[in-house]
Amino acid sequence: MSSRFGHLFTLTTFGESHGAGVGVVVDGLPPGIRVDVADVQRELDRRRPGQSAITTQRQEADRVEIVSGVMDGVSLGTPILMLVRNADPRSKDYDTLKDVYRPGHADYAYAQKYGVRDHRGGGRSSGRETVGRVAAGALAKAALATVGVSVVGGTVRVGTIEAAKRDWSETERNLVRCPDADAAAAMIARIEQARDAKDSVGGVVELVARGVPAGWGDPTMSKLDAMLGAAMLSIPATKGVEIGGGFGMCALAGSQTNDVFDGERYATNYAGGISGGISNGNEVVVRVAVRPATSIGQPQTMAAAEGGTRTVAIEGRHDPCICPRVVPVAEAMMAVTLMDAWLRQRALRGREQ
Amino acid sequence: MSSRFGHLFTLTTFGESHGAGVGVVVDGLPPGIRVDVADVQRELDRRRPGQSAITTQRQEADRVEIVSGVMDGVSLGTPILMLVRNADPRSKDYDTLKDVYRPGHADYAYAQKYGVRDHRGGGRSSGRETVGRVAAGALAKAALATVGVSVVGGTVRVGTIEAAKRDWSETERNLVRCPDADAAAAMIARIEQARDAKDSVGGVVELVARGVPAGWGDPTMSKLDAMLGAAMLSIPATKGVEIGGGFGMCALAGSQTNDVFDGERYATNYAGGISGGISNGNEVVVRVAVRPATSIGQPQTMAAAEGGTRTVAIEGRHDPCICPRVVPVAEAMMAVTLMDAWLRQRALRGREQ
Amino acid sequence: MSSRFGHLFTLTTFGESHGAGVGVVVDGLPPGIRVDVADVQRELDRRRPGQSAITTQRQEADRVEIVSGVMDGVSLGTPILMLVRNADPRSKDYDTLKDVYRPGHADYAYAQKYGVRDHRGGGRSSGRETVGRVAAGALAKAALATVGVSVVGGTVRVGTIEAAKRDWSETERNLVRCPDADAAAAMIARIEQARDAKDSVGGVVELVARGVPAGWGDPTMSKLDAMLGAAMLSIPATKGVEIGGGFGMCALAGSQTNDVFDGERYATNYAGGISGGISNGNEVVVRVAVRPATSIGQPQTMAAAEGGTRTVAIEGRHDPCICPRVVPVAEAMMAVTLMDAWLRQRALRGREQ
Amino acid sequence: MSSRFGHLFTLTTFGESHGAGVGVVVDGLPPGIRVDVADVQRELDRRRPGQSAITTQRQEADRVEIVSGVMDGVSLGTPILMLVRNADPRSKDYDTLKDVYRPGHADYAYAQKYGVRDHRGGGRSSGRETVGRVAAGALAKAALATVGVSVVGGTVRVGTIEAAKRDWSETERNLVRCPDADAAAAMIARIEQARDAKDSVGGVVELVARGVPAGWGDPTMSKLDAMLGAAMLSIPATKGVEIGGGFGMCALAGSQTNDVFDGERYATNYAGGISGGISNGNEVVVRVAVRPATSIGQPQTMAAAEGGTRTVAIEGRHDPCICPRVVPVAEAMMAVTLMDAWLRQRALRGREQ
Repeated sequence: MSSRFGHLFTLTTFGESHGAGVGVVVDGLPPGIRVDVADVQRELDRRRPGQSAITTQRQEADRVEIVSGVMDGVSLGTPILMLVRNADPRSKDYDTLKDVYRPGHADYAYAQKYGVRDHRGGGRSSGRETVGRVAAGALAKAALATVGVSVVGGTVRVGTIEAAKRDWSETERNLVRCPDADAAAAMIARIEQARDAKDSVGGVVELVARGVPAGWGDPTMSKLDAMLGAAMLSIPATKGVEIGGGFGMCALAGSQTNDVFDGERYATNYAGGISGGISNGNEVVVRVAVRPATSIGQPQTMAAAEGGTRTVAIEGRHDPCICPRVVPVAEAMMAVTLMDAWLRQRALRGREQ
Repeated sequence: MSSRFGHLFTLTTFGESHGAGVGVVVDGLPPGIRVDVADVQRELDRRRPGQSAITTQRQEADRVEIVSGVMDGVSLGTPILMLVRNADPRSKDYDTLKDVYRPGHADYAYAQKYGVRDHRGGGRSSGRETVGRVAAGALAKAALATVGVSVVGGTVRVGTIEAAKRDWSETERNLVRCPDADAAAAMIARIEQARDAKDSVGGVVELVARGVPAGWGDPTMSKLDAMLGAAMLSIPATKGVEIGGGFGMCALAGSQTNDVFDGERYATNYAGGISGGISNGNEVVVRVAVRPATSIGQPQTMAAAEGGTRTVAIEGRHDPCICPRVVPVAEAMMAVTLMDAWLRQRALRGREQ
Repeated sequence: MSSRFGHLFTLTTFGESHGAGVGVVVDGLPPGIRVDVADVQRELDRRRPGQSAITTQRQEADRVEIVSGVMDGVSLGTPILMLVRNADPRSKDYDTLKDVYRPGHADYAYAQKYGVRDHRGGGRSSGRETVGRVAAGALAKAALATVGVSVVGGTVRVGTIEAAKRDWSETERNLVRCPDADAAAAMIARIEQARDAKDSVGGVVELVARGVPAGWGDPTMSKLDAMLGAAMLSIPATKGVEIGGGFGMCALAGSQTNDVFDGERYATNYAGGISGGISNGNEVVVRVAVRPATSIGQPQTMAAAEGGTRTVAIEGRHDPCICPRVVPVAEAMMAVTLMDAWLRQRALRGREQ
Repeated sequence: MSSRFGHLFTLTTFGESHGAGVGVVVDGLPPGIRVDVADVQRELDRRRPGQSAITTQRQEADRVEIVSGVMDGVSLGTPILMLVRNADPRSKDYDTLKDVYRPGHADYAYAQKYGVRDHRGGGRSSGRETVGRVAAGALAKAALATVGVSVVGGTVRVGTIEAAKRDWSETERNLVRCPDADAAAAMIARIEQARDAKDSVGGVVELVARGVPAGWGDPTMSKLDAMLGAAMLSIPATKGVEIGGGFGMCALAGSQTNDVFDGERYATNYAGGISGGISNGNEVVVRVAVRPATSIGQPQTMAAAEGGTRTVAIEGRHDPCICPRVVPVAEAMMAVTLMDAWLRQRALRGREQ
């Protein structure tokens, strides 16, 4: 079950970083949804390495093929396989890493878990696994759009630099995908500084879903908060998630954070659009903590598989800040989570929403 | 699926706040585990209302009955039903709330989702649902103990007051369950201040699991981070979760946050004991943001079911800070999550751990 | 997962034959369904031991309590716990069986699987576990009735005696629940003969669902045939299942067994109402092979737990033919299966059916 | 969930008959299992069309590619994508079938379920979907072999001709895969007769698993019988399944059908190796009813999508008897089911078996 997400709208990703390819099987997309491979490709292009000066320079065209489940541009209601071939493996770069466990990476944990591992570029633990998520998210976005639900996201913090605005039309206009053009410039400078130091820097990605009607999400164990939390924390390099007011609410009083709904609108949104695990009609707001990329070019002390330590500088091409590339992945996972909640509500009530 | 958690070790809770009872069915506890009803009761007593001056004064003995799955104090490997009868309903307290939606509560969202709802004390959305979680957690703790894994937790922040120490032997000695006796006194004063103002205050609960071997948790979709995230965010009133360094890592560099494992130990624990979704042998550390309790005694403006608004002061007995009672629930959910990951690793490798 | 059935409409049964009680948690019943405890009780009375001269004389009132999920006779959409206390244990009857494995029973397999077992009356492997199924089935029947779907069942064969008619209004008028009054008399005589010989006899139960619209059931892995097959073969003592023409079709030609649908009706129903795993609008027809009851009063050779064999005559009260009591259980499992398929179709298409 | 099978060892098939390809994602194969693509190919060759004079003459090389999850011939424990490109579509053959519903086929049910459908060769409802099952089964067989478990199968009945022997070494030596060489000749003649009449004939496939230790399979809802039942009835064209004595036991007495286990061996195997849903150490025996193929060359009356009927002779290449090609599919599904049960038992007991 490790590679599957969702109950009714499910995705199962597959693929190693330097194997033959990566991708996803999506099972549960309702029939009759328009599926345009160009839409999927556009989302993949947002995730793709080598897209700008502040992302890894690994070159992957990441051309997607839709193998099944779609006929004449329309979903059949059957499983949809989307496959991306790996084009630029350069496995040799990783030969020196075969017998050491990189700090911050999953190498040691994988070895302990499985006994065997594909050491080339992280194998299955590579961020490359998220190709399948983004492809699945493109389908979820297309389906959600049919009922007026959309998901946007952006980088709202890099290091100590925070976005002061939320102009979501701005995010695709700057390299860091920040909804605040001024902050974006400072963020990019901060990322370049990390890159030049062969180091990395962390940040925060924020997601907003609009148009979600009240009633999605299940109470208790499958709260919409919980499902979004799992979705976000399943993305590589994420180590925190908060909904609405999140950790910031801890210092406040209930009389401040109880969003007042007057029957028509909410004055505030501390709940992040989710009450008791169920969407309440307000915008759904999620923030994700992205740790500094664990792949850095500096020499580091590493545990050797055979015992003892070695100091190695990792060759290869790295992202000094993952946030810009996490944005499309996190959007995809939010869309997928909402899609699943939507279908469950349809099952519960027997109507469109 | 809304009320079930887990894949191999599953719990399904049931019950409304003012119905006949609440509880849980646990399916998947291996056979041969010693199950002492007194252990379950002791955990429930930590969660129970009315346990101290800073919790709600609702009186519930919360006596648990183990109906099935245990014979002669040993688990049979079959489903375990644990039932707690509701003893102190006082449903009348809630009559004035039948036709209004309380701010911050799930009332409106439930009404939109289900069309019908049990308005008495929040019905299913009540924190009372967590009785079943705590009972299930007691079984998970007992099973984990057989392989040397334990879970501890405490309140590490109330309002702006933070614990400076992590003395886990201290937590059951103060009312707020803080691992820092000095901070505890300040926290309690802060909670009393909120109570006297008919208001509430938020905080942070921290959990630590010790003895978890490397290899638990699945990569990609069922990362241990993701499962813990879902577990924590499924607890009422939680709005954020972070693993290890969490949001605090955003401002740091990769060269600082890459935990160096020298083959024997880690010098730091920014990963919170989880690398690539898999336990790495270090302590697993989770923090949970607990919002200020939404139930407060002040008059509040509420949307009326028939339209318009009303201003109502909610009768009833409230927790001015939920943190002390979230601690046993969060511990339970962490234990349950680890239990599930453990069994999955046994399936994968065919050995005890 | 062992005790759960269903994806969206799920039941989890619990309880040992001679423990404190048995029952079920039903999760996924949509809100707003009328739930009458008398309806549940009536179905349980059809399953209950001691109901007639040809069933076991064990006396159990089997009074059901609905603990949660229902308010004012209407489902809330939350989990429904239904509990039946065990009233007539007579555990002593089973003391001689503690250290032997009864032929045909699950004793040996349980011991090998779990290492521990409740030997009293079969413990978890007892037919008593089906109490929870029947209770859940009553809810499924109530929900299905709101869209005009009903399930009937009866004993159509005992030993070599077969029913020649399918008068479903007849089944509750004879002790063996046969839809053919003439055959019923012969069947009862056959069962009495087995009882007097301290032996047992097998038979076939047939189920028919009416009003199922075309489109329920998923293709490939969750075909409606497959789900019904699992449902039926999960009932104790069943060892075969067939849909529509079943095994009888093997000797025929495709030109005979291709049901011709003229756009309005089918002339035949070899498909048993299911084409490609999906309901086709015709009656859904299932037959279940029920083996002779394994509990018989004759002395039998049994493997002893400590090695070697013993010859033991099993005390206790047995059913000489289980078919009459399998009927309500099989109906329940069919209703539950259809319920699940219905909800999945609602999720897929976003409409009532 | 429609295209997924299994809990811990899961397969998700994808692909339409005349789309770009078909295949499977297998998630849950433990790490360290030797995976030889030639083994997978050999199983696919047993299923492939055009393999003999008595199967459909559609030509498909069915070359499999393992895209992920395997490195250096060893499983990594990560998802394994196996892809087979469709080579011989000839979609034009199906143009006349676009607007009619073929008798016996899923056409009408699909149209009602999804609203859209791929009419070319049955699209998703084609037997071609089973390619993925067979590929997954090859991996399950390889894994099971490491603990001495094997699965064999064959055609034991065609029309009214029954195999009198069970010589499993014989099955791959005759075209019909019958474990009785004499019966095989008669079966082949019977199939040729059907072919020449542009008709089809049904039969029975039998499966035997050897080496299964006692303890696999869960009681109650996930009985091994139930899981095998679902597995078999999920195969296209199957309409019945029986375990061990099956329907034949109905006419017998309990004193005959209670298999006596003397602590070392069973004298009989009416239980088919499964007691109370759990393997009992005996051979696991399953029989599957295979209906006459619904695709026949004779002119048939069909419902037209726009109303009314048409009489059409279906062009294309058909199997006059599906049994020989069902054999590898049924073996695969049995292997997959046992694999899943094995892993669950490992989770339960924390040891190799």
